[in-house]
Amino acid sequence: MKVLITGGAGFVGDRLARTLLARGTLGGRRIEQLLLTDQYAPRADLLADPRVQARTGPLLDQCQALRGERLDGVFHLASAVSGECELDFDLGLRSNLDSTRALLDALRADVGAGAAPARLVFSSSVAVFGPDAAVPMPAIVTDTTLPTPQTSYGTHKLVCEHLVSDYTRKGYVDGRSARLMTVTVRPGKPNGAASSFFSGIIREPLAGVEAICPVAPTVSHPVSSPQRTVEGLIAVFEASREAYGGRTALNLPGLNVTVQQMLDALEAVAGPAVRARVRFERDERIAGIVANWPSGARADRAAALGLHPEADYANIIRQYIADCRQAGATDALKGMTP
Amino acid sequence: MKVLITGGAGFVGDRLARTLLARGTLGGRRIEQLLLTDQYAPRADLLADPRVQARTGPLLDQCQALRGERLDGVFHLASAVSGECELDFDLGLRSNLDSTRALLDALRADVGAGAAPARLVFSSSVAVFGPDAAVPMPAIVTDTTLPTPQTSYGTHKLVCEHLVSDYTRKGYVDGRSARLMTVTVRPGKPNGAASSFFSGIIREPLAGVEAICPVAPTVSHPVSSPQRTVEGLIAVFEASREAYGGRTALNLPGLNVTVQQMLDALEAVAGPAVRARVRFERDERIAGIVANWPSGARADRAAALGLHPEADYANIIRQYIADCRQAGATDALKGMTP
Repeated sequence: MKVLITGGAGFVGDRLARTLLARGTLGGRRIEQLLLTDQYAPRADLLADPRVQARTGPLLDQCQALRGERLDGVFHLASAVSGECELDFDLGLRSNLDSTRALLDALRADVGAGAAPARLVFSSSVAVFGPDAAVPMPAIVTDTTLPTPQTSYGTHKLVCEHLVSDYTRKGYVDGRSARLMTVTVRPGKPNGAASSFFSGIIREPLAGVEAICPVAPTVSHPVSSPQRTVEGLIAVFEASREAYGGRTALNLPGLNVTVQQMLDALEAVAGPAVRARVRFERDERIAGIVANWPSGARADRAAALGLHPEADYANIIRQYIADCRQAGATDALKGMTP
Repeated sequence: MKVLITGGAGFVGDRLARTLLARGTLGGRRIEQLLLTDQYAPRADLLADPRVQARTGPLLDQCQALRGERLDGVFHLASAVSGECELDFDLGLRSNLDSTRALLDALRADVGAGAAPARLVFSSSVAVFGPDAAVPMPAIVTDTTLPTPQTSYGTHKLVCEHLVSDYTRKGYVDGRSARLMTVTVRPGKPNGAASSFFSGIIREPLAGVEAICPVAPTVSHPVSSPQRTVEGLIAVFEASREAYGGRTALNLPGLNVTVQQMLDALEAVAGPAVRARVRFERDERIAGIVANWPSGARADRAAALGLHPEADYANIIRQYIADCRQAGATDALKGMTP
């Protein structure tokens, strides 16, 4: 089978690509070809796999060429992140809304030419939820909570969920939308996401660098490890239509933790000197965005698919440390006493 | 002030235009100019009003020219209807999604050029609601019911609600979305809307013509009169931001009636011979679409704005008869015994 990952060089996309290549199959079929589109090139070792083909550039510019590819499976992860969309309204519309529409239309064109509908998993986000004066947000959002997004990013994700649902209803694609919780710990540099600090307050201290936490320690949020997130995307892809249930987006599992609990876990795993590198300094822009995010989530439909959150946040930190060690990224852990 | 009605030559748009011209003011300001865009030309007597200017053609083609108009108010009613969208997927996307986006971007461009954000009322629809396997629909939908649309039309309306909300959040427009219930009795010919028969089973018998009802008499649905609908749109326009509450769409009032009750009212108003012209003949396509619509609605936020549904369906029929008489449309009533 031929599988596409959009955003295939990103944090989640890279891990998903490696997981799929290691499995060799998806939904019981052999993966013959794995197409990765991204603004950036995938890492060299991924490219070295003969099954991998990379196409670099904005997704919107690539969708015309995707017509005729007769893709069997698509993981649509490419997205401008929340902070970027708040700063550049047109970028958000183009990267998140127009690109998704163009991708769906490319898949639809192949169905029009006689292909079977591609199975597609769209990575939506917990950012679809938010409080509105007319609709208070519950503390814990569920699969059936009314989404009233309070960012452009969340708006585009919600809009695309509904487009995926309608293209699915028409038989143009076999689509499913899975709402990712905030994925931590992201390696590398901070990105433009308002949620970037949820990784930064763990990643930087472990690397021996000071980190600033822009929100109060009492802030609670549903988070997921990269591994559980990738497992979730694959499980949603492999689920039968009946097991997925309907066409409405589902929540992927999240561990509901406070910043305080994250830092307690950091101390338990890496010691008090590491934790002491986190300083609290409120950033009104970030705090304002985060205040409109849910403090926790429940994922009943995902649980019915056998998906569950990590047991505790220390697990997530240990996974990050193990990943760094496996990648030989010694600098990333140089703040830890050996 | 300068006011635009998109779909200004349509059934609701025409009535709204006349109501606004008769009032002369909107939100306490004098209406100097009323711009009507539509695929069709407005009726001649409307055009004769010196305040009225018409632009004919697809809305999508007109939005570029709307930049620089510095509109104070917009009623965005233009839309391809549900049946059309099911038959022509691209038409639906273009007429409902792309056109709304282009309109919002035109208004946003004026804000970028220093204008105050235009106040905009977007006419959404009760068709945003529908049952999904993952999310059963309640018998009576409310302002906070989770919309899971089951038609492209409903999908586009919901998507546009969220775009209006996000453009509003950014200050590009002062937008409000009002979900119209099915408006009856529409004059003229049946249109492509799946809901067309809700008017047809009253209109045709009154004109002495046989009508076919494609659904069972037990089918229940929230309906509104044209007058209440127009009053609702104006009240939502005139509401303060606080009174409207948040940025989430609200339901306009609907009278929840069964087809049986509609026909009983027809008999009460116009006699048994008129009612006898309605024949039941199930149409699977129509019945399938309608089965996914709610059987009733509640409109609590609209009620707080002082908006209420008609007291009974006979009122709605009497309003239609009075409208026909006032317009001198004797043919429309020739099925009634004088």
